[in-house]
Amino acid sequence: MTKEEVLQSLVVQTESKLVMVVMDGIGGLPVRGKTELEAARTPNLDRLTPKAVGGLIDPISYGITPGSGPSHLALFGYDPFRYEIGRGVMEALGIDVVLTKDDLAARGNFATIDEKGIIVDRRAGRIPTEKNREVCAFLGNEIKEVEGVRISIYPGKEHRFVLVFRGEGLRDDLTDADPQKDGLKAKGTEGLSQEARRTAEIVNLYLKRATEALRSFHPANTILLRGFSKIPHIPTMSEKFKLRPAAIATYPMYRGLARLVGMEVLKTGETLHEEAETLKKDFDRYDFFYIHFKKPDMAGEDGNFRMKVKAVEEIDRVLPSIFKLKPDVLVITGDHSTPAVLKSHSWHPNPILLFSKYVRPDGLRRFTERHCQRGQLSRFPATEVIPLMLANGLKMKKFGA
Amino acid sequence: MTKEEVLQSLVVQTESKLVMVVMDGIGGLPVRGKTELEAARTPNLDRLTPKAVGGLIDPISYGITPGSGPSHLALFGYDPFRYEIGRGVMEALGIDVVLTKDDLAARGNFATIDEKGIIVDRRAGRIPTEKNREVCAFLGNEIKEVEGVRISIYPGKEHRFVLVFRGEGLRDDLTDADPQKDGLKAKGTEGLSQEARRTAEIVNLYLKRATEALRSFHPANTILLRGFSKIPHIPTMSEKFKLRPAAIATYPMYRGLARLVGMEVLKTGETLHEEAETLKKDFDRYDFFYIHFKKPDMAGEDGNFRMKVKAVEEIDRVLPSIFKLKPDVLVITGDHSTPAVLKSHSWHPNPILLFSKYVRPDGLRRFTERHCQRGQLSRFPATEVIPLMLANGLKMKKFGA
Repeated sequence: MTKEEVLQSLVVQTESKLVMVVMDGIGGLPVRGKTELEAARTPNLDRLTPKAVGGLIDPISYGITPGSGPSHLALFGYDPFRYEIGRGVMEALGIDVVLTKDDLAARGNFATIDEKGIIVDRRAGRIPTEKNREVCAFLGNEIKEVEGVRISIYPGKEHRFVLVFRGEGLRDDLTDADPQKDGLKAKGTEGLSQEARRTAEIVNLYLKRATEALRSFHPANTILLRGFSKIPHIPTMSEKFKLRPAAIATYPMYRGLARLVGMEVLKTGETLHEEAETLKKDFDRYDFFYIHFKKPDMAGEDGNFRMKVKAVEEIDRVLPSIFKLKPDVLVITGDHSTPAVLKSHSWHPNPILLFSKYVRPDGLRRFTERHCQRGQLSRFPATEVIPLMLANGLKMKKFGA
Repeated sequence: MTKEEVLQSLVVQTESKLVMVVMDGIGGLPVRGKTELEAARTPNLDRLTPKAVGGLIDPISYGITPGSGPSHLALFGYDPFRYEIGRGVMEALGIDVVLTKDDLAARGNFATIDEKGIIVDRRAGRIPTEKNREVCAFLGNEIKEVEGVRISIYPGKEHRFVLVFRGEGLRDDLTDADPQKDGLKAKGTEGLSQEARRTAEIVNLYLKRATEALRSFHPANTILLRGFSKIPHIPTMSEKFKLRPAAIATYPMYRGLARLVGMEVLKTGETLHEEAETLKKDFDRYDFFYIHFKKPDMAGEDGNFRMKVKAVEEIDRVLPSIFKLKPDVLVITGDHSTPAVLKSHSWHPNPILLFSKYVRPDGLRRFTERHCQRGQLSRFPATEVIPLMLANGLKMKKFGA
């Protein structure tokens, strides 16, 4: 048996409650000697940290900087090399579009072509979001289906939108219908396999009809599509780990990722406090909770060290209401690092703390990269977090006799 | 995608400079409580070590003692189980023979046979190196080709030499033409596949003609060949990692290994100082440098603890001129351990330090096995060193969205 099969054969359903707190982009880099976590005042975490075991997790592998898709898949216990989430799917998740297995998603741009069909502006002058909504509404009404395939268009920001084709047997092995630079003629998509031919024809037919329909919408007089993708065939967390999992997240993309692995997405508000309240309210109904706090990543992406420190402090203030629920297993970690210094995701490992009745407490003083590094969990791949949580929740049988 | 494919898809070329300093056989074992690194005085390293992140690398895997071939391949980012370098090829590299894909290399011994063809001495009485050169020169002139296959012979030490067959379609799946003990008849090689038959015939024809030619060269009156091998099909570091890599090494074998992965081998002198000078001189022309310091391994192989300590101290003295170049990423490590106690390579992991702007410094005090073990890089496979260096040099895009 493979390790994956063994794991799956060992899990059992029990009443114990597992809670995974994900601080997005939590890992950082030092500025004047201290990382964001080191600079933050976190009295609530500090009080509990000594009782946990700590470690560092690698989202994917040494040196690899993950996007949110792969890093979350890994945290949820899925091999991020095996299950790929395409660009179109990620964009759709990012605006709360619920995809089915029959859906083919693509990222779209409104663009400008001249009378000869040459692209003169790939972004249609970055039309205002308001204008984008208007054009999408028009196009959505104008073309509802092509050869029996249903088409939905969802506006994003400025010139961006998401297009979803829904129909049986659609394929996503298609080339981008976007030359990626100005001065070229817009091209259609091509199927990368025999089986993808029909899908390519449908997409190209749509492109043709959309461009005709948009004739009078200059500068948004054509569309470019890329990142064609379908949701991966992925077993649910319930199939894989016998969990009844629920997700609490204020941002659509994370709700979408959770939905991909079969989590129930709970209705929640916009604030950390509301997220914690949701956890409390639904605590009896599930046995695994993923609770996502977005702010540290946003501050990191903005290169705003102070703001990231504050985001951590804000999370610290809401943690007591989670501790109070006394989950059997509580994990506090991040999906990837987003150091303010780099203004982007990075390859650095994230600190992790695991609380349960069945640990040999490390006595660490703080939840920081350098404190956790001295913990018993050592440095390990993010994909091992779920097995560890299951074990600590006594949800795993013995392997072999 | 496999991890390897993902990695390859993420690398980008940039101007940042990566330098990998390899102290051959650096890992050691304690004598009176201290390993060679612990016993050495290394003021220059000590000054910089606190700024780095440290760890321990396993050349191959727990318990596996590597030769120089596999350990270097791993350091260069290649799976050492996948790419094998045969004995003949290693010997050829060791005497600076540049091999092409049409070359079949073998290790050779001069040996003594009696009138019945029985081997009475597999090493021809360990003839002096001077005599070896003479016999090789004779044989090289006598037999230049067999059935259109070009033959070159290169003397080694005492009774040893390297033989290279050059011709299209030669195979290396051949048995050794060496019974490995005295008292037996010399036997030819056999092809291990249908396709290897022709190669075996050519080799055996050569053996016959060489033995005839050597009739009057007693005790060197025949030859034995083993370790038939060709260079592996291996992507270059430039293909795999988009690097422009250069190697600085005073010993042929390491130059040869670097050449196998497509590094440019830089002309350098015999001393550490000259190696450092070469790095300085060519620093603008490449973006990856492998610089190899041989002495610790030699001292270790000799079981000379004091000498290995001195070799480390000597390297420490030359390091400031490398630090001064301010590479964006600097790694200091070893290819494998060679503890003086064992007088041989060993399976122990090697300490590693990585310097870059984008680390959370460990504040380690010294570059030793036991200090580095407490570092953030933790214990990890040598194959991950290059991905880490690429990431720290900002030469990798994000994986997924």
